Amino acid sequence: MTRSLALLIAAATLASWPAFAQPEGGAAVSVQASLFAEEVARARHEVDAAIRAGVNVPVPRDPGGGVTHEQHKRNYRTIFEGGQLYRLTGDRRYLDHVRALLLAYADLYPGLGRHPAAANQVAGRLFWQSLNDSVFLVNAVQGYAEIRDVLPAADRQRIDDNVICPMAHFLSDESPEVIDRIHNHATWAAAGVGLSGYLLGDRDLVDKALLGLDKSGKTGFLRQLDLLFSPDGYYAEGPYYQRYALQPFVVFAAAIAAHDPDREIFAYRDAIVLKAVRAAIDVTHNGYFIPVNDAIRDKSLRTEELYHAVAIAYGATKDPTFLSIADWQGRTVLTPAGEQLAGDLAARKAQPWRFDSRALGDGPDGKQGALVLLRTDGGRDGPLLVAKNSVQGMGHGHFDRLNWLYFDETGPVVTDYGAARFLNVEAKHGGRYVPENNSWAKASIAHNTLVVDEQNQFGGKWKVGEERPTQQLAAGLAGPTRYSIAAIDTAYKGVAMRRALLLVEVEGLANPLTIDILRATGGGRHVYDLPLHFSGHIIDSDIDFARHLAERPVLGTANGYQHLWVDGVGARAGKARLTWMQGSRFYSYHMLPPAGARFILAESGANDPQFNLRREPALIQRVEGAADAVFVSLLEPHGKYDASSESVVASKARVSAMDHRRADGADILTVTFADGRRFAVAVAEDVAPTARHRTTVDGRAFEWTGPVGRLDLSRETRK
Amino acid sequence: MTRSLALLIAAATLASWPAFAQPEGGAAVSVQASLFAEEVARARHEVDAAIRAGVNVPVPRDPGGGVTHEQHKRNYRTIFEGGQLYRLTGDRRYLDHVRALLLAYADLYPGLGRHPAAANQVAGRLFWQSLNDSVFLVNAVQGYAEIRDVLPAADRQRIDDNVICPMAHFLSDESPEVIDRIHNHATWAAAGVGLSGYLLGDRDLVDKALLGLDKSGKTGFLRQLDLLFSPDGYYAEGPYYQRYALQPFVVFAAAIAAHDPDREIFAYRDAIVLKAVRAAIDVTHNGYFIPVNDAIRDKSLRTEELYHAVAIAYGATKDPTFLSIADWQGRTVLTPAGEQLAGDLAARKAQPWRFDSRALGDGPDGKQGALVLLRTDGGRDGPLLVAKNSVQGMGHGHFDRLNWLYFDETGPVVTDYGAARFLNVEAKHGGRYVPENNSWAKASIAHNTLVVDEQNQFGGKWKVGEERPTQQLAAGLAGPTRYSIAAIDTAYKGVAMRRALLLVEVEGLANPLTIDILRATGGGRHVYDLPLHFSGHIIDSDIDFARHLAERPVLGTANGYQHLWVDGVGARAGKARLTWMQGSRFYSYHMLPPAGARFILAESGANDPQFNLRREPALIQRVEGAADAVFVSLLEPHGKYDASSESVVASKARVSAMDHRRADGADILTVTFADGRRFAVAVAEDVAPTARHRTTVDGRAFEWTGPVGRLDLSRETRK
Repeated sequence: MTRSLALLIAAATLASWPAFAQPEGGAAVSVQASLFAEEVARARHEVDAAIRAGVNVPVPRDPGGGVTHEQHKRNYRTIFEGGQLYRLTGDRRYLDHVRALLLAYADLYPGLGRHPAAANQVAGRLFWQSLNDSVFLVNAVQGYAEIRDVLPAADRQRIDDNVICPMAHFLSDESPEVIDRIHNHATWAAAGVGLSGYLLGDRDLVDKALLGLDKSGKTGFLRQLDLLFSPDGYYAEGPYYQRYALQPFVVFAAAIAAHDPDREIFAYRDAIVLKAVRAAIDVTHNGYFIPVNDAIRDKSLRTEELYHAVAIAYGATKDPTFLSIADWQGRTVLTPAGEQLAGDLAARKAQPWRFDSRALGDGPDGKQGALVLLRTDGGRDGPLLVAKNSVQGMGHGHFDRLNWLYFDETGPVVTDYGAARFLNVEAKHGGRYVPENNSWAKASIAHNTLVVDEQNQFGGKWKVGEERPTQQLAAGLAGPTRYSIAAIDTAYKGVAMRRALLLVEVEGLANPLTIDILRATGGGRHVYDLPLHFSGHIIDSDIDFARHLAERPVLGTANGYQHLWVDGVGARAGKARLTWMQGSRFYSYHMLPPAGARFILAESGANDPQFNLRREPALIQRVEGAADAVFVSLLEPHGKYDASSESVVASKARVSAMDHRRADGADILTVTFADGRRFAVAVAEDVAPTARHRTTVDGRAFEWTGPVGRLDLSRETRK
Repeated sequence: MTRSLALLIAAATLASWPAFAQPEGGAAVSVQASLFAEEVARARHEVDAAIRAGVNVPVPRDPGGGVTHEQHKRNYRTIFEGGQLYRLTGDRRYLDHVRALLLAYADLYPGLGRHPAAANQVAGRLFWQSLNDSVFLVNAVQGYAEIRDVLPAADRQRIDDNVICPMAHFLSDESPEVIDRIHNHATWAAAGVGLSGYLLGDRDLVDKALLGLDKSGKTGFLRQLDLLFSPDGYYAEGPYYQRYALQPFVVFAAAIAAHDPDREIFAYRDAIVLKAVRAAIDVTHNGYFIPVNDAIRDKSLRTEELYHAVAIAYGATKDPTFLSIADWQGRTVLTPAGEQLAGDLAARKAQPWRFDSRALGDGPDGKQGALVLLRTDGGRDGPLLVAKNSVQGMGHGHFDRLNWLYFDETGPVVTDYGAARFLNVEAKHGGRYVPENNSWAKASIAHNTLVVDEQNQFGGKWKVGEERPTQQLAAGLAGPTRYSIAAIDTAYKGVAMRRALLLVEVEGLANPLTIDILRATGGGRHVYDLPLHFSGHIIDSDIDFARHLAERPVLGTANGYQHLWVDGVGARAGKARLTWMQGSRFYSYHMLPPAGARFILAESGANDPQFNLRREPALIQRVEGAADAVFVSLLEPHGKYDASSESVVASKARVSAMDHRRADGADILTVTFADGRRFAVAVAEDVAPTARHRTTVDGRAFEWTGPVGRLDLSRETRK
């Protein structure tokens, strides 16, 4: 039945399959399906190897990364791929092997209890966490569906009764604490349970998957679609888990579309499933997911989840820009949806995906803050300023409201540590998140946002953070002066923070400037720290640092500060600058900190007994004993270093002066370049789009409407 | 006249050139010449931009990387490319611009004295060091040659008399301290002077270039060919400078071949020029030059020097394996040699270059040590063990005899810091070598070789090192147990060192093991330090380290030790292990150090006031108060980490035990794997290839001939 779903979505022609059934015959595979042909060849290679290795269904023992864990993962992939290959080729070897595997599980599964290596997670049976059991079921059902009809009745019965049914019941009735949550683990469970229901013709299972165990609709798949995505398709936990969560959403949605077409699932909630796929693509840079919240930085669109998502979304929309994503992925899935996508890609129907500026609202109503993406071109790897003004992101959220990141052609420039985890590497805390994920990666000081009194936002309590949204006050997504303005007054008791981040294109500069105006308003006296985590090698600075050259202390004792080595502490009156180099480009960070500020150069990696942390540089602007503080900063990418031709241009910054003042209800910043050119930007307190503002710069009138204005001071317009 | 040389070498057909002369006409460029067509298009783009920018010949002022420096560099490229484009297209705009540039130099040059920014280097006139003036002349003469015949006589006279002639005289008669050396700067000078001589028909200049200012042959180009390369074509200063030096050698050789064919320059000294080109290609990994001695690590075969070298060597030999190198380069040169190469590449004549194991003898007689390259396959980026047993490498040499490096598909694994330099980045010591190049990058402790009593080899005096070769005792380049055995007893007073490095392929292991047996024999009591500099993130270790978690001291006070932060010091009885991860692979380093040894985990970057150093990890095995010491180590690459599919295999080392003993005139090492398999290797004291050896392992006879033997202990051959 899954088969009919796949056919319904993709309308694939199977006529060409003899070419794959007899590859030794030398029949040339049509170039139109080359991506798919590669997929089939890859699957044959893997499944043929699995067949040679024989059936191996071990008694569960190991945690993530261990031998039995990896073997059960290989097995569900073999069941999925073997089933698809049988459909595509008719080769009975695939049928026989998938059958043998499933019968081995029929012997093993009914006797299993709680997994012996279960730790903090909800225990599974085949795996240490039930999440993996759900993933097993989603894959196994899809593979089994391709052979079930041709199995002897007795085999079918054994597999139905001893594998699919009990797994579906384990993940539904026996696991209310999983399936009745609003969480991606529940989506995987619902998908497994629902696909099982469709396969077995068990409406009860389907309804529990769709509407929750009590079938009220207060939980279940549809409620997850209502609550886990914002109206823009942004997933509450952030880009990394958006990727992870996507697969059960799209796979189950495709099954619903096939079996319950009247539900019009792809149109549900204003097409939220498709919006989620599009948002997942948009929250990448050069194909890699933006690493806010818990996120491993090497995850890209080149993952199983996105192969499924892109193929299914293309099947549902025929939007040719999905094809350009598939082209970058260089992979697709073995299903008919994948085959159709590969054919259309080979037929040159692809159109470029346009990576536009977006403000992705967060929360079920889209009003609990936003993740703002500012881009100057539509390219995959061009300049990208991210303003992280979303909600907490549940247990995987970081304490980093008003955080920002910057990427361009050289990669991540202003960085986020992401997660502290070595996925599935047993020696590293069993492959789970390492302790430093809490003590460093989630800490506020590990992010590019204001830290008050060396504390984490919300006291480091994510459930508190979950209740306190960020206010996205305004966002300007077009024109040469894009911006985000956001605020939060609940992250620290008694301190309100407001941050304007501007991505400014300047004529004659190859790269845009980022301007950052951050204001803290608090009673009493505070320590304000504004870190910048960056990637690259320090070139020079005009700050006079007292360096710790021969003995290196740590910065603090808690809340992430214990993980920072101090390389030096310095001061400078007026504008200060730090320049570094990454790849072929130079970056200068210009600062107008509050009066009396000091600059701390630091590096992550202290108090790290198990070598779990990467060692990465940070510059912290610190002011002590202040009630209010304004930090004005500017990031200037410049120049070019070409090792091959040994040429270097513009290794020196071009921004030579900055002046900030507060006047007429606005922050006014003037920026002067070495060649004498100047411009001013203004950020108004009143963010109403129609509000009109007026001030004077250099004796010249400066008028604008809306939150942000800009004036070129180079042109001779003064009377 | 240079033109005729080029034609003679490449026998290019010019018939197709109208296609380039009228690109707007839409004439399709033949696919056979696509690489060359791209080269022409790139040059047109650059030279057209230069024409639009106008003639800019500034009075010299800045050091490397500065404005006038970069402008004069641009100008010689424009002269070279503009000349070629005029030949190829007949477009007078190119003729006019090259003429205008040269006439501007004719106005400027005669009035110039010593460059104002000259520092330690020999001062140039256009540039801060005369080396750059030589490079200017080599390029300018080649461009000028293409237009000289069609210039009005008066222009020709002015350029000859005010640019070419005085530059050639400055670089010859007026700079004996440059041109009469045996050094790559002298080769550049000789090439510039010689090419000028051929162009002007000035035999005196040519002879001075070929035979030295006194024409005795004691210096000059031919003598440089005798002394700067070993008989294997290895260049004395190492791979990085081999690359740099190559261009004047091949360009001048090509001119000699054209103008003095009777010299048979490409056959000279058993075809040393071609051997040098081949050796330059062989001393790369994944296209990047092996960074021994002063070397910037991002230099690859994708450099101007190698575009010329490959095109000229292909023209001289028609060896189709050069074409596969050009294919990887993706570039060629604008000369007829480049055109022919591009055509043959497009005609699919390329054959793969075989990156074989080699022992490149060092020194003019090839007997002053060697650079040994051990490879297990012929691929560009496969496993590569480098044993650095060469001579000093003159002023650019490092104090690192018996050093080793290891590379594989993940990149450099056992690393060399290379040079401490930010080429042409003015803020970094004017773009020159930074002070830490001497204090760290050249220091013995910065390399993977034995350091005695915290001193540099040869007391840190390179001229002393230059007199003291390494003894390459034996090398085995084939079979599953490749090896290098070398020794030196002059690096430290009273201490003899001998090191055997083996690259061992084992059935069932995807990657070869490196085995390292290093013996120091000295009188008195010494501190022996054996560092391993590696690339990757530490996973775990069975060493019990006392960690410096919250305050980090430095290891020493001089000879590079002052640049090492100490992360921890530990000990362990018996075999010790450190495992790290790089890219998709794990690496375990297994050690059997001398009794009483401690392990020091360290990182470069201490005492670095200007942030000139990268921060890279090192593990040091240290034994104190010993006369003799044997360090036995084994590097085991293993497993696979795939972030995309979230699969991890074999993250644990498979080598479970090692046992070393000295018996029957040999070091005997047995290695045991976790699955119980065992093998033994033996390295005999007597390295005679015909010597027969016999010992007993596990009660079994172990016989071999030559320096190295191996016995598989898993097979049941015992009676």
